[in-house]
Amino acid sequence: MFDIPEIKYCTECGGKTEYRTPKGDNRQRYVCTKCGHIHYQNPHIVVGTIPVWEDQILMCRRAISPGYGQWTLPAGHMEMHETTQEGAIRETKEEAHADVTVTTPYFMIDLPFASSTQIFYIGTLVRKEFRAGEESLEVRLFKEEEIPWEHIAFFTVKRALRNYFSDRRKGTFPFHYDIKYKEGPKGEPDYVEKP
Amino acid sequence: MFDIPEIKYCTECGGKTEYRTPKGDNRQRYVCTKCGHIHYQNPHIVVGTIPVWEDQILMCRRAISPGYGQWTLPAGHMEMHETTQEGAIRETKEEAHADVTVTTPYFMIDLPFASSTQIFYIGTLVRKEFRAGEESLEVRLFKEEEIPWEHIAFFTVKRALRNYFSDRRKGTFPFHYDIKYKEGPKGEPDYVEKP
Repeated sequence: MFDIPEIKYCTECGGKTEYRTPKGDNRQRYVCTKCGHIHYQNPHIVVGTIPVWEDQILMCRRAISPGYGQWTLPAGHMEMHETTQEGAIRETKEEAHADVTVTTPYFMIDLPFASSTQIFYIGTLVRKEFRAGEESLEVRLFKEEEIPWEHIAFFTVKRALRNYFSDRRKGTFPFHYDIKYKEGPKGEPDYVEKP
Repeated sequence: MFDIPEIKYCTECGGKTEYRTPKGDNRQRYVCTKCGHIHYQNPHIVVGTIPVWEDQILMCRRAISPGYGQWTLPAGHMEMHETTQEGAIRETKEEAHADVTVTTPYFMIDLPFASSTQIFYIGTLVRKEFRAGEESLEVRLFKEEEIPWEHIAFFTVKRALRNYFSDRRKGTFPFHYDIKYKEGPKGEPDYVEKP
């Protein structure tokens, strides 16, 4: 279980905080010892795409940890004042310099141990143009039989791709929801450091 | 557009922050003037249910602002280490003291102006038992023709219910995605204060 990020000092007054259950609440929060401000924390949304060009999928080889050198789909934290669509398109642009169009969410997976919810769109590449962004070592198109399943950085990406290829055979792409309850054991390609 | 919440002091060292674009970044963040810590902020996930008992929907009359005295569906902020399912079930328990089972997300709506994404599940009431939680004045079941459309606190709730009743007529409940780009004008039942 990933720890809840520590808030050592109050964002309102700079005072020291303590981790305790505020009156009338039922869980611990970082509460300021000086002004009493309660710091509520919430899970993060990660948004990304499965970028598609004809029968191929665009993937990125990671230039950063975790999963350095492993393959992934373009995805990252949603920003303030964004829609999930805009975030997914932006991440695809940033990590693969590729322009995609999206419609509705395709795959959503909750990772409670990481306090994260990930939402993937199927992204239709507008043109066959792409190149590695700052967080990628290389970016390339893969046919299904070429997907480097053993070198995928994250479980969620693997699951998104499995859903996609399975649906493609059926010719229909309904929304999928999934939960990964536990952090993977060492060796499982999920949050595994490969320097 | 709702402002991005201000972080006046650094959560790491208590130093004063400034709002500026960090080197290598492309948007403004609250950055500590003392230790340089960058405070990333992300949209919040709101989770809730459309609680169903036979041909009726359970709704709550709000005991808090915004929308005091108006009707809503049980929903609230997702907590750390939760799944969207668990959050939706918890909020239904807290606000309506009702037990529901859920399957997959039914309706998701992005509210970029509020940096919020809301996810509703259809909740099947386990038994016909419910009562007002602390944030509710009253809780009751409504048949479709009884829904107080003119007294619903939030646009998102109205939209969730419209989808539900429309789908019920068709006998199928596919996943829906929507975006509300702008805060409603004064008088629209969305974030409107009714004291």
